[in-house]
Amino acid sequence: MRFSRQMITVEEAMRRLMERLTMQGREEVHIGEAYGRTLAVDVHATDDLPHFDRSPLDGYAVRAIDTVLATPDQPVRLKVVETIAAGDVPKITVAEGCASRIMTGAMMPSGADAVIMFEQTVQPAAFLEEVGIKRALKQGENVSRHGEEIASGAVIVRAGERINAGTLAILATFGYTHVPVVRKPRIGLLSTGVELLDVDQPLYPGKIRNSNTWMLSALIAEAGGIPLLFPNMPDDLDVAKGTLAEHLKMVDVLVTSGGVSVGDYDVMAALSDEPEAELLFNRIAMRPGSPTTSLMLHGKPIIALSGNPGACFLGFELFVRPAVQKLSGVQGVQLRTIKAKLAVTYTKPCPYPRYLRGWLLEKDGVLYAQPDFNEKAGNLGTLKNSECFIVIPAGGIGKQAGELVEVLSHAAPSWKQEG
Amino acid sequence: MRFSRQMITVEEAMRRLMERLTMQGREEVHIGEAYGRTLAVDVHATDDLPHFDRSPLDGYAVRAIDTVLATPDQPVRLKVVETIAAGDVPKITVAEGCASRIMTGAMMPSGADAVIMFEQTVQPAAFLEEVGIKRALKQGENVSRHGEEIASGAVIVRAGERINAGTLAILATFGYTHVPVVRKPRIGLLSTGVELLDVDQPLYPGKIRNSNTWMLSALIAEAGGIPLLFPNMPDDLDVAKGTLAEHLKMVDVLVTSGGVSVGDYDVMAALSDEPEAELLFNRIAMRPGSPTTSLMLHGKPIIALSGNPGACFLGFELFVRPAVQKLSGVQGVQLRTIKAKLAVTYTKPCPYPRYLRGWLLEKDGVLYAQPDFNEKAGNLGTLKNSECFIVIPAGGIGKQAGELVEVLSHAAPSWKQEG
Repeated sequence: MRFSRQMITVEEAMRRLMERLTMQGREEVHIGEAYGRTLAVDVHATDDLPHFDRSPLDGYAVRAIDTVLATPDQPVRLKVVETIAAGDVPKITVAEGCASRIMTGAMMPSGADAVIMFEQTVQPAAFLEEVGIKRALKQGENVSRHGEEIASGAVIVRAGERINAGTLAILATFGYTHVPVVRKPRIGLLSTGVELLDVDQPLYPGKIRNSNTWMLSALIAEAGGIPLLFPNMPDDLDVAKGTLAEHLKMVDVLVTSGGVSVGDYDVMAALSDEPEAELLFNRIAMRPGSPTTSLMLHGKPIIALSGNPGACFLGFELFVRPAVQKLSGVQGVQLRTIKAKLAVTYTKPCPYPRYLRGWLLEKDGVLYAQPDFNEKAGNLGTLKNSECFIVIPAGGIGKQAGELVEVLSHAAPSWKQEG
Repeated sequence: MRFSRQMITVEEAMRRLMERLTMQGREEVHIGEAYGRTLAVDVHATDDLPHFDRSPLDGYAVRAIDTVLATPDQPVRLKVVETIAAGDVPKITVAEGCASRIMTGAMMPSGADAVIMFEQTVQPAAFLEEVGIKRALKQGENVSRHGEEIASGAVIVRAGERINAGTLAILATFGYTHVPVVRKPRIGLLSTGVELLDVDQPLYPGKIRNSNTWMLSALIAEAGGIPLLFPNMPDDLDVAKGTLAEHLKMVDVLVTSGGVSVGDYDVMAALSDEPEAELLFNRIAMRPGSPTTSLMLHGKPIIALSGNPGACFLGFELFVRPAVQKLSGVQGVQLRTIKAKLAVTYTKPCPYPRYLRGWLLEKDGVLYAQPDFNEKAGNLGTLKNSECFIVIPAGGIGKQAGELVEVLSHAAPSWKQEG
């Protein structure tokens, strides 16, 4: 069936692959190792936040009722009964005509119901027996109330959220020394083809160094998987069957590059025809990478990417990244596109949707999608500049500059300057 | 000078800090460890790419002149003299009336000057002694020429570029087993304040768990630094001087959180007044985080962030991330803002520019900036949702929905759905 493959859309290919993937099990990791991981369960507040009434600024804790007549010209004078640092437990109740000097984050003393900032008192830097209050306060003014941010028991982070620096802050606040996360999927990785040399080998005529494995390994790790690198695989079908069977025991998904096209030695294409393989897809309506293939073998999914570096890169972003995310427990994995105006006219005809590498520009709040016109000439050398894929719909007319196009973002925009 | 600080702009503060920072030295790391690092020098192509004429597809290598009469109905018949796999060195010159079966990536045989894809030949799947060519080819058609992508000696990656997956691909292609990168800066990190508990300690009245250290540690690592965590520091000035002097010997920059305001125990503020400290700034025209402080001590920069988690987070993005980047050798470090339409009206008056946490939305190619309205109530709990800072200019009128505002992006937009 080398030349008679059934073509499906990117969306259908993704659906077929995704339904074969299930979330990994759970493990607990120390908070210092939790960055970038995905929460396995909803996590709850273990206490109120704050867990005591506290002052949000440096000043004086007072009874609001004592300040009603205060003005800058006629400050109300209160007796200072205590100084309360953050971390202290106040010892003295603030009685009528009294105030306690209080620091940011410190616990409110009983009796007091408002805080006035130093800058609204007389001689704030001095430690005096009395303080002059220069304005009237309302009850509760400048007091952070017990539980006002988060109530005990509330969900603070949901299952399926990826842990970022802000997540760590809230987990630490509630004492989560260990965090329940989804186990990282092990993603096997190999390239096919006897033409491939390792990075440390000299070039020989006809041979090239393997670049896809290094690229894919970094992408898998960045997406949240553990890359397991296997040696390059020869193009002998029987050898490949035995090798892959062994590799598949060690991984959750196997990713290969090369050998998916119509060549005489395309071993992944040949494998698709074997009875033990259940083919998910081997022809996708897209450019580049239309022969991107996926199959189930011994109960495990194989994603066979094109060996062409540009097609391999696209195949990773369309299929492998979502697969790693779904295995990692990320909720609602999808290829989410945004719209942007095409920065330049692109009219090269294509019978299938074309995914152009490029990046986003911004001008006066409008998004522009800039294709990388070095893409073809410098296929491999310009992969590093790609921040998104710009989708040119199928058909012979392309898109004019200024028309809206769909964009699939795969890296944080660097917001390159136009031009 | 607790209450008489000189106020400067964010831009001026950044300038003062940046001019005290110099790029780290160089080291070589294995390509498998180079992801995310910054190139220390320009890197050059060690050969032409491709380094031989090759076929970009599966088909037949032919002499174009032999195909001029070929049509689908009247194919030109050529004698097949060889099959060339990727990695092979062709043995037979393609003479008049001949062709070689050739695979994607394989070396062109001498004599041939064009390649026809299988699909444009008669019976492509069969290994026959003759092949029928169904269309005329031009000289050079479907041949990737020696050096056409990149010429030997050309710069492939520039000093100051951060290494991503695409960079690894091109470095591997040119045999860079080891990569010259800038040494990671060591960023010391500590929190001040006796009110702070460790994540594994139970809560006590008046005390809270330290969340900033975990947050900052993850942010420093993500920005490219090596976080060195020191114990919480007491608020005694003399003790602090001794402690900081020891810590500074071990790091390139020290980042602290807390103790920068006007409180009685604000040790970093007190340190700023000491003769051995050279103050860079201690009051910035911004909200939150106006008391964010930086000083030189024993020849090393200290960046003293506010203890308030939201202000600490902002201070990191405005000052620490650029500092880590500059030390790491990133070229042209700056606070690059883009413009977006404010998604909702924000009129809270502020005498200084206000940095609202939020995220970017996209609708029909237009960028909208959505402030996080839970920011105040859930200061700590919503840090995780922040993807950008929306700058509301100084003044009492704020900005109306739909007005353009400056946005400082600090995380890859997740392109949340509106609403």
